[in-house]
Amino acid sequence: MQASVSGKVAETGLRAKYIEVRSYTEKLCEPLQTEDYIPQPIVDVSPAKWNIAHTTWFFEEMILKKHLEGYKVFDEHFPHLFNSYYNTIGTRTARDHRGDLSRPTVKRVFEYRKYVDEHMSSLLEGEVPDDVGELVLLGINHEQQHQELFVTDLKYMLSVNPLFPVYREGFAPEEDIESASPEFVELESGIYEIGSDGQGFFFDNECERHKVYLGDFAISSGLVTNAEYIQFIDAGGYSDHRLWHSEGWDWVNQNEIEAPLYWHQRAGGWSTFTLAGLRPLVLDAPVCHISFYEASAYAEWKGMRLPTEFEWEAANNKFNWGKRWEWTGSAYLPYPGFKKPAGAVGEYNGKFMINQMVLRGASVATPAGHSRSTYRNFFHPHLRWQFTGIRLAYDGIR
Amino acid sequence: MQASVSGKVAETGLRAKYIEVRSYTEKLCEPLQTEDYIPQPIVDVSPAKWNIAHTTWFFEEMILKKHLEGYKVFDEHFPHLFNSYYNTIGTRTARDHRGDLSRPTVKRVFEYRKYVDEHMSSLLEGEVPDDVGELVLLGINHEQQHQELFVTDLKYMLSVNPLFPVYREGFAPEEDIESASPEFVELESGIYEIGSDGQGFFFDNECERHKVYLGDFAISSGLVTNAEYIQFIDAGGYSDHRLWHSEGWDWVNQNEIEAPLYWHQRAGGWSTFTLAGLRPLVLDAPVCHISFYEASAYAEWKGMRLPTEFEWEAANNKFNWGKRWEWTGSAYLPYPGFKKPAGAVGEYNGKFMINQMVLRGASVATPAGHSRSTYRNFFHPHLRWQFTGIRLAYDGIR
Amino acid sequence: MQASVSGKVAETGLRAKYIEVRSYTEKLCEPLQTEDYIPQPIVDVSPAKWNIAHTTWFFEEMILKKHLEGYKVFDEHFPHLFNSYYNTIGTRTARDHRGDLSRPTVKRVFEYRKYVDEHMSSLLEGEVPDDVGELVLLGINHEQQHQELFVTDLKYMLSVNPLFPVYREGFAPEEDIESASPEFVELESGIYEIGSDGQGFFFDNECERHKVYLGDFAISSGLVTNAEYIQFIDAGGYSDHRLWHSEGWDWVNQNEIEAPLYWHQRAGGWSTFTLAGLRPLVLDAPVCHISFYEASAYAEWKGMRLPTEFEWEAANNKFNWGKRWEWTGSAYLPYPGFKKPAGAVGEYNGKFMINQMVLRGASVATPAGHSRSTYRNFFHPHLRWQFTGIRLAYDGIR
Amino acid sequence: MQASVSGKVAETGLRAKYIEVRSYTEKLCEPLQTEDYIPQPIVDVSPAKWNIAHTTWFFEEMILKKHLEGYKVFDEHFPHLFNSYYNTIGTRTARDHRGDLSRPTVKRVFEYRKYVDEHMSSLLEGEVPDDVGELVLLGINHEQQHQELFVTDLKYMLSVNPLFPVYREGFAPEEDIESASPEFVELESGIYEIGSDGQGFFFDNECERHKVYLGDFAISSGLVTNAEYIQFIDAGGYSDHRLWHSEGWDWVNQNEIEAPLYWHQRAGGWSTFTLAGLRPLVLDAPVCHISFYEASAYAEWKGMRLPTEFEWEAANNKFNWGKRWEWTGSAYLPYPGFKKPAGAVGEYNGKFMINQMVLRGASVATPAGHSRSTYRNFFHPHLRWQFTGIRLAYDGIR
Repeated sequence: MQASVSGKVAETGLRAKYIEVRSYTEKLCEPLQTEDYIPQPIVDVSPAKWNIAHTTWFFEEMILKKHLEGYKVFDEHFPHLFNSYYNTIGTRTARDHRGDLSRPTVKRVFEYRKYVDEHMSSLLEGEVPDDVGELVLLGINHEQQHQELFVTDLKYMLSVNPLFPVYREGFAPEEDIESASPEFVELESGIYEIGSDGQGFFFDNECERHKVYLGDFAISSGLVTNAEYIQFIDAGGYSDHRLWHSEGWDWVNQNEIEAPLYWHQRAGGWSTFTLAGLRPLVLDAPVCHISFYEASAYAEWKGMRLPTEFEWEAANNKFNWGKRWEWTGSAYLPYPGFKKPAGAVGEYNGKFMINQMVLRGASVATPAGHSRSTYRNFFHPHLRWQFTGIRLAYDGIR
Repeated sequence: MQASVSGKVAETGLRAKYIEVRSYTEKLCEPLQTEDYIPQPIVDVSPAKWNIAHTTWFFEEMILKKHLEGYKVFDEHFPHLFNSYYNTIGTRTARDHRGDLSRPTVKRVFEYRKYVDEHMSSLLEGEVPDDVGELVLLGINHEQQHQELFVTDLKYMLSVNPLFPVYREGFAPEEDIESASPEFVELESGIYEIGSDGQGFFFDNECERHKVYLGDFAISSGLVTNAEYIQFIDAGGYSDHRLWHSEGWDWVNQNEIEAPLYWHQRAGGWSTFTLAGLRPLVLDAPVCHISFYEASAYAEWKGMRLPTEFEWEAANNKFNWGKRWEWTGSAYLPYPGFKKPAGAVGEYNGKFMINQMVLRGASVATPAGHSRSTYRNFFHPHLRWQFTGIRLAYDGIR
Repeated sequence: MQASVSGKVAETGLRAKYIEVRSYTEKLCEPLQTEDYIPQPIVDVSPAKWNIAHTTWFFEEMILKKHLEGYKVFDEHFPHLFNSYYNTIGTRTARDHRGDLSRPTVKRVFEYRKYVDEHMSSLLEGEVPDDVGELVLLGINHEQQHQELFVTDLKYMLSVNPLFPVYREGFAPEEDIESASPEFVELESGIYEIGSDGQGFFFDNECERHKVYLGDFAISSGLVTNAEYIQFIDAGGYSDHRLWHSEGWDWVNQNEIEAPLYWHQRAGGWSTFTLAGLRPLVLDAPVCHISFYEASAYAEWKGMRLPTEFEWEAANNKFNWGKRWEWTGSAYLPYPGFKKPAGAVGEYNGKFMINQMVLRGASVATPAGHSRSTYRNFFHPHLRWQFTGIRLAYDGIR
Repeated sequence: MQASVSGKVAETGLRAKYIEVRSYTEKLCEPLQTEDYIPQPIVDVSPAKWNIAHTTWFFEEMILKKHLEGYKVFDEHFPHLFNSYYNTIGTRTARDHRGDLSRPTVKRVFEYRKYVDEHMSSLLEGEVPDDVGELVLLGINHEQQHQELFVTDLKYMLSVNPLFPVYREGFAPEEDIESASPEFVELESGIYEIGSDGQGFFFDNECERHKVYLGDFAISSGLVTNAEYIQFIDAGGYSDHRLWHSEGWDWVNQNEIEAPLYWHQRAGGWSTFTLAGLRPLVLDAPVCHISFYEASAYAEWKGMRLPTEFEWEAANNKFNWGKRWEWTGSAYLPYPGFKKPAGAVGEYNGKFMINQMVLRGASVATPAGHSRSTYRNFFHPHLRWQFTGIRLAYDGIR
């Protein structure tokens, strides 16, 4: 969340960056019908309307209200409607009721976006103090996070519809194949530096940069593919309790899990739902939409394990990444020296550091430029609606 | 459900009636924004889109598929999407997931309506056999039931929105006042005939017409008003366990019920949400949106009781009714000689005859012409989103 | 609850009756191990310890505290522990936490019984006013109700134990066969008088005696047997939705119901758990431990129906009854003129008159002398742990 | 779980150790009434009967069945009843139904213990192979873990009883005060070795011994006291969202948490339930029965943090510990090189390594000899029924 904002960036680059990122959200909206903005099929998934209004509210609440003189809020009800989880700021619509709201209309939400954009543009035309510039950068990165959520939430919402609606013809980036042949890369034991080096934008949870000691380990340069995952299924992986965490085993049985999310078994083999509709599974593409429990059980079945987030970061320049968010074996906890900023932005990351696992990398739904080797994503271990995948590791050097 | 359809009606009147009723649904839709068709805030409330597609499906499924030669279904997925509860017909979207569906779009649902209407119109241009005519009448009455649900469901959906959206300016028929002064009408003990006499349309649950013995009783010619209900509240009615059923008392406490649904206590007194927005409560209008538990507790507090459905029917021509569905003290059970029709329409009423209470009358949301003195409405005792009210009765003649 | 208590009864008979009934409870306890008094496997089932302490508390609370001068309560904590549902009296242990209490010990509960018995005995040695006599009679009947619950609750608790413990060798009265051949008895339409005639003891829910009109009907003189019920199972009764109420169908599917409670399918056929352990099902004995939903579905499958409680009462002297509590097609509602007594005993019956169905008769677990033709038992339609059965009826005279 | 068992130990010491530990369980039982063995008020708490039978089953299942020739199981039903969570072994009573079982009686469970003890004693009289010796050691340590659970589960069960029963007069070790004045001990950054060094008994989760890099930190030599924790309460700690994890804040609000478990606010100040009954809180004793959420919020309020489990282990010889299990800031995850043993014992620890936090130290309920500096205890962050406490740490050297 802290960010290095040089005077130059604040004067010119920030405004351009702001406009570029905000425009991309609207580009993502183009294929939608009005109806597509509304439903919230499960609590983890927000309506498209909420996603695009919430990021707008973030700029209004965190920046315009405090730092643009004379700014008048667009609608006094919107903070209650579009605050996500900031207790510091006030009351809000319960997270599981975001889909109950037909109003404001989509049209009005776009008017809201325009209103805020115009005021942000004014603000960014002048010189902004460093602390404001940092908040703008935070807002931009926040918008990018919600661009990814926009895509993943939309995919989930459309997937529960028996019509299997198409968002955009041909838009199925999860079918991309990794080009290079995978191999295990070995790293030697020693002290490694982990966390942001303070260059460019970073979130508070990437700090302090600190030393960790790692033992010898090997990590795959490639992600586990659908074909490999099918072998796990066919070998009875989902019915062998020995491979699973106890809570994972309960999750499998209570939800009758037999395959990754969105997979459908048809006469001709596996199909999967994509934003381009239901399509035959591409066997050589990396497996996608699996929970931590599944990632861990697969690794156990292979006699290996998931890398820790520290191993991943130490080794990340030895392989290509960016197609999947990759589950690590690390729980989401504060780094040594972690400090929550004062005020509402202090609620951004720190209060979620319990019962979640870290994911590293980025996915095909991540906006360009919104990833780096120190980025820490995090989700509860049963969740699957993100574009998650598996990279294997093992102890020692064989 | 059985209906007397003379040849004449089948040839001329039915088609006109069909068109009239179907048009009224579309008239109800006029003030809506596209977004308003989608949300389902609670399981009891269906999205507007679902209501208008489901009634269309009813005509397609029950009539066109079987009785219009060469009929081709509009979309093979729609039966799964818009079947409500007919196990005989096949699988369906779970009732609590109707709000998860953005597609088909509203536009496409109106195309569906048009397609079915054209084919129904063709069918009704010719002579139709009595059994088909009866099904058409059933479908028309079914559509009218969903017109009422359209209004009540929409009201609920808009009510949970902190913006308190307006459906139509000035549309608040629940504010209408009963003109005549109420008095208690006395009826003498004896045998009364209850149920449909076979004239005009009626549902299967109104049959067989049968005799019941009633003791002396008195019934009010007027509904309990908001002003009277406020006295109950002010007297501590919601905190006196002696007035309540045990399950009602649990319901009050678990849901922290302190007033009828949609009431808001403001500085200046009670306001209530209507389809014309949030408005000051009209004190002399009949109380509305109360559960059976509340109706019963109010009656207990007055030292009286609710009428049975038989008393209500026996006395109904002695007072005006039609502003509220009126809770009775009768459980929803089959009349002597009740028979479920064969096939899917056999699921229309009979299978719900457990754990529900009968309401008599009609409400300000009931379409004109869709009510009669033998009509039996029924809901679970905790439900409040219909336009329900209270009419008092007592034993004996004072 | 009102009762006719002549002076003579109050002076002599009541005391003897009190001692006899209280002794019978202790006789029921004889085969128990201390451990058997404690568990509460489901909310509907009370621990044996609770049952025998609660009835004792009833005498202390309703009679001794008010009507025996100088009476000192045995333990000031017991009212909180052993009050069942009387809001008038004060706080209490939540119903689903009765099984959490190891103390007071069983020994101490028997000391409590002895203490209260001694004081009740003193009280009843003298002359008691009619209103006190009525309360004593109520307490005696209340104890008898809990004797039945003692047996049914104990059976359930032991049944969930994979050891299938034996309460008493050979104690399986549910295996008794009805001796007479069943036939359908016909009754002609007309006005019948229903409810207590004011002779002997009766509960408030049996009043006022009132007239009902019944149409022609026939009712079986025998109960449905296990052999007959197996035919229903074998014919696919549990998988034919057309036979079931909608809520019954959900209940069947959610709980995977395939047979009456306590039935186990073994290699050699059906066995059933009894208080004498797991035993082969006696085919000619009346079916037992079925819900209202099952009773109703069975009747539907036979093309018949359950009798109403009024039909049952009108016809009851034309057949033998007493082996099963028999589900009727009547909801549990107040009779015309029903009045709740003032004070805590007003909570005895009236507040439960919603969402329950009436059962008539008595069962093999009912204490001798605790049944009569006007007795109204009531349970929610899904409950099965009582000794419930099925008697068929049909409309008209064939 | 691996253990170094020299030949000598296997021949002599093991048998003595076995007898000593098993006897201590029976000593713990002495003050109990039969009734106290039965209830299970919440799923996390097992009945006393289950705890003492389960540890016996562990010896029978893991050792006698496989390693004592001719051994005949005591009761073929017991594995189903007393298996805790070993899928490898077979079916079992669901964890939340352990309190439903009145049988086997307590007497029979003690017979079971005697039977198994006699056979174990025979086995241990001879020479046992190392792998069997290791399993015996595991069983002994397992029994000790359940001795602690016996105490904590019993305390919880008695605590929900409004009678506040006394287990043993004067038995309130949670009132013990730490004698030394607390200070912050500083450790310098560097590489530390963590995990078992292979001497003596240890569980599989303490391996492999491995290096970690720690930065400069300071850790308190004393535990947070009740007096200090009251300051947190009085300062509004439970109503300041900024101090809490998001899930902790939900937990506080949903459960209306306002103080540690077992605390009662009386006129004269705080009291707390102990196994010696309800007693005034000892202000200078370490705070007890707090969740991870509370421990973390307290540390946040002090501007500090909890130590990691690695810091704790590195520093543990610089302070006294053993009065409380101490929440650390570390999630329960496998150490590098962790390997699950084959067979059922492989389910002992590994499958729980998700969504739990590590506790270090030992508590006043831990049996003597059952603790060491590498011991890793673990619980879900909301649980409080163990004797948990707080030790503070901070980054850097001040």
